[in-house]
Amino acid sequence: MTSPRDALDALFTEAARLAVDTLAQNHDRDQPVVRRVPPRELIAALELELPAEGRGLEGVLDLARKTLHWSVRTGHPRFLNQLFGGYDPAGILGEWVAALGNTSMYTYEAAPVGTVVELALIERLNRYVGFDQGEGVFAPGGSISNLMCVLAARQRAFPHVKHEGLNADDRPVMFTSCESHYSLKRAGMVAGIGTGGTVEVPVDAQGRMRPDALERLVVAEARRGRTPFLVAATAGTTVAGAFDPIDALADVAGRHGLWLHVDASYGGSALLSVRHRDLLAGIDRADSVAWNPHKMMGVPLACSATLMRERGTLVGTMGMNADYLFHEDSDQDWDLGDRTLQCGRRVDALKLWYAWQVHGDQGYAERIEGLFDQARRFRALVEQRAGFRLVREPMGTNVCFRYLPRAERGATGEARDRAEGAATLRIRAALADSGRFLVNYATLDGAPTFRLVASNPLTGDEDLVALLDAIEDEA
Amino acid sequence: MTSPRDALDALFTEAARLAVDTLAQNHDRDQPVVRRVPPRELIAALELELPAEGRGLEGVLDLARKTLHWSVRTGHPRFLNQLFGGYDPAGILGEWVAALGNTSMYTYEAAPVGTVVELALIERLNRYVGFDQGEGVFAPGGSISNLMCVLAARQRAFPHVKHEGLNADDRPVMFTSCESHYSLKRAGMVAGIGTGGTVEVPVDAQGRMRPDALERLVVAEARRGRTPFLVAATAGTTVAGAFDPIDALADVAGRHGLWLHVDASYGGSALLSVRHRDLLAGIDRADSVAWNPHKMMGVPLACSATLMRERGTLVGTMGMNADYLFHEDSDQDWDLGDRTLQCGRRVDALKLWYAWQVHGDQGYAERIEGLFDQARRFRALVEQRAGFRLVREPMGTNVCFRYLPRAERGATGEARDRAEGAATLRIRAALADSGRFLVNYATLDGAPTFRLVASNPLTGDEDLVALLDAIEDEA
Repeated sequence: MTSPRDALDALFTEAARLAVDTLAQNHDRDQPVVRRVPPRELIAALELELPAEGRGLEGVLDLARKTLHWSVRTGHPRFLNQLFGGYDPAGILGEWVAALGNTSMYTYEAAPVGTVVELALIERLNRYVGFDQGEGVFAPGGSISNLMCVLAARQRAFPHVKHEGLNADDRPVMFTSCESHYSLKRAGMVAGIGTGGTVEVPVDAQGRMRPDALERLVVAEARRGRTPFLVAATAGTTVAGAFDPIDALADVAGRHGLWLHVDASYGGSALLSVRHRDLLAGIDRADSVAWNPHKMMGVPLACSATLMRERGTLVGTMGMNADYLFHEDSDQDWDLGDRTLQCGRRVDALKLWYAWQVHGDQGYAERIEGLFDQARRFRALVEQRAGFRLVREPMGTNVCFRYLPRAERGATGEARDRAEGAATLRIRAALADSGRFLVNYATLDGAPTFRLVASNPLTGDEDLVALLDAIEDEA
Repeated sequence: MTSPRDALDALFTEAARLAVDTLAQNHDRDQPVVRRVPPRELIAALELELPAEGRGLEGVLDLARKTLHWSVRTGHPRFLNQLFGGYDPAGILGEWVAALGNTSMYTYEAAPVGTVVELALIERLNRYVGFDQGEGVFAPGGSISNLMCVLAARQRAFPHVKHEGLNADDRPVMFTSCESHYSLKRAGMVAGIGTGGTVEVPVDAQGRMRPDALERLVVAEARRGRTPFLVAATAGTTVAGAFDPIDALADVAGRHGLWLHVDASYGGSALLSVRHRDLLAGIDRADSVAWNPHKMMGVPLACSATLMRERGTLVGTMGMNADYLFHEDSDQDWDLGDRTLQCGRRVDALKLWYAWQVHGDQGYAERIEGLFDQARRFRALVEQRAGFRLVREPMGTNVCFRYLPRAERGATGEARDRAEGAATLRIRAALADSGRFLVNYATLDGAPTFRLVASNPLTGDEDLVALLDAIEDEA
């Protein structure tokens, strides 16, 4: 009979070996980024079933091996597909320890370490934002952070909403750019104001919300009898990576008494670099900020900070004071549960704490600058090559571009867009099917457009050049 | 210079050792459940700081050791404090692999394995519920699942809400028992109907929602001009562990055209046992169900299924069809992102898949029955001892009880409640401060009451007897 310790030892020793193999393969460019198969084939390959009779611990490592074999390698230098990438061993360790500790963040009593660590991290992130008297909490992703901020804005503008709900004469309306993340409009929908309660503000040629257009729309909506209450700016839009002009938007928000939220889920990390933080100039004037260290900072998903300028906002918005959980005799100031939309909540703080100890402020600044440089170099490569063109002037770490195949070089105007768009779809699929590159696309200016995201410090010029070569080859 | 592989090897080999030590200590009753210290002392002990200059990977294992040293041992047989407990090596491995794979559940492309595994698990959970044509998705906890279900109910009753928001003449009102989880009332608040839009229905002596009272209240609210749209029943209330009579509530809901949601976050797992599934009789008549495998099934936090009777409900409620993410040329039926309130979403499916392979349906049935038996045995112990009494007739795995110290045995009525309540607070704190037991309390019938939760199969009669002895000793 195996003792519990022996069984654990056999399992976790082998799991560690698997981790080392898996992560070391991220340094080997001959490994495929992904082995693409259709869902039904994958189900067969995984032998995915849930048995009536248990098979014991012995087979579970095989499941882990199969899982990793068929997973996308998001740490591979040629995974350029999402707003996150690379791998951070310290961050992974933080997740492992969170799983070992398996507790929940509602009270200091249940999660003492997670609580004090999260508070320290929130304080540091707030310092970068410029919220001297701020507060915050981690959420399971940017969409939930955005929802919490929309709710806080709704609460300030319509203080009766928490108890009475929305009234007939409230008629709330919020504003965000037409290139902002869909979670903002959905947050309005969740909050009861409908998708029609969000007005999309036009952007300039780089994809930035236009403050003049915002002001015009705010005035027009007020004249229509609706009540403007929120401007949601974006620092780092999802497709183009644009940074809205926060300072100018704060002026408009200030003139009209609107809550200013900055969805910096993606671009907030630029605050870590003195070279790039000006992209977010004015963010200290915001009322709320969403910032995801699981994106540009490279810790594992999810780690999403929901930051508020003013202490008490979160409890004022979300708090329900459940007495079975939050005891009056406890040190309640340290219980974070009443600040969130959750009850049980994973410990997302450890991974960022460990990673911060390893990298320091300085390491993070270098990482961010490296990613910006990577995008800048890729942009130059795109501009130098015949047939390639930028579709947006990049502001950050996203580069949106298209390729016009040789045979169609004569095309102009809409015909050219169509030819480029068709090539984007065809080439992207071929690169992914072969496992060489995963690079995403989005419709921009009317046609499918490649979107490369620089998010992995391991990605080098050789990878960037190889991507352009491969696009030409596949065309 | 260390190679990446050597550095990874040093880190993760040691991490595996730490995992084995940590988990093996759960079998050693001499280990404290927790080392309680006030927050400021903990901050000092952790040497919690975020350095300007990085310290490299070398020190990070020390952070992990410190983290675990000061954490609550939720896997300890004397941790009886929350609705979760114990530890599952397969579940922990699932979390480790999720961290290694570090991807996001929005598309099949980005998370092929997570997607097909989640769909298989949802199908299985739906089969236990009795949703033959159902659908579902994992959420980061029961509160978010409850929110999604409240939104789905709102959407069916007020189909204009997605685009237009709530109208003046909607006046929605929902119903839930006065002992249901606070996240339900908060969900109504989030959805724009205010906490006042939830009517609390009285419970019977065991803490079950009273169908007669529900019907009376529904009729009364309709007469007042409000629009009843949702009954949220609970299978396993947070404090008393009561199971609302779902079948009778479904009758009321049916008569009045109301959405029936069952918050089975805690008690859903009773469906796994033929012996106990009748507690949820009628759940197949519900429109939506929340069920948390991270509670009674013992996988790490968070794993919360949001289940819908009817396919298409989730997209109809939450879907925003963001074209940058969900590509028309992809196998969109397999993209789960548009079914949630999130965008990026952790892979919570692996841990449950691995655990299910290890335990099987049968192992889970035995686990659930073991926990119910544990609670039954504890209840008998409470009833046998002088000075102890049950405050509720237990239905599931929670036992709510009080102790009247010897010196105060003469007290009756309110004086007795006061004496018992004071003893609960004092004794509980002493047990936790000494690290011997963590057992929670809540105010029930007017006074603080111990709530023991049977959630760890390692907890044995010796632990249950030792708890009662310790309570007597501390009194």
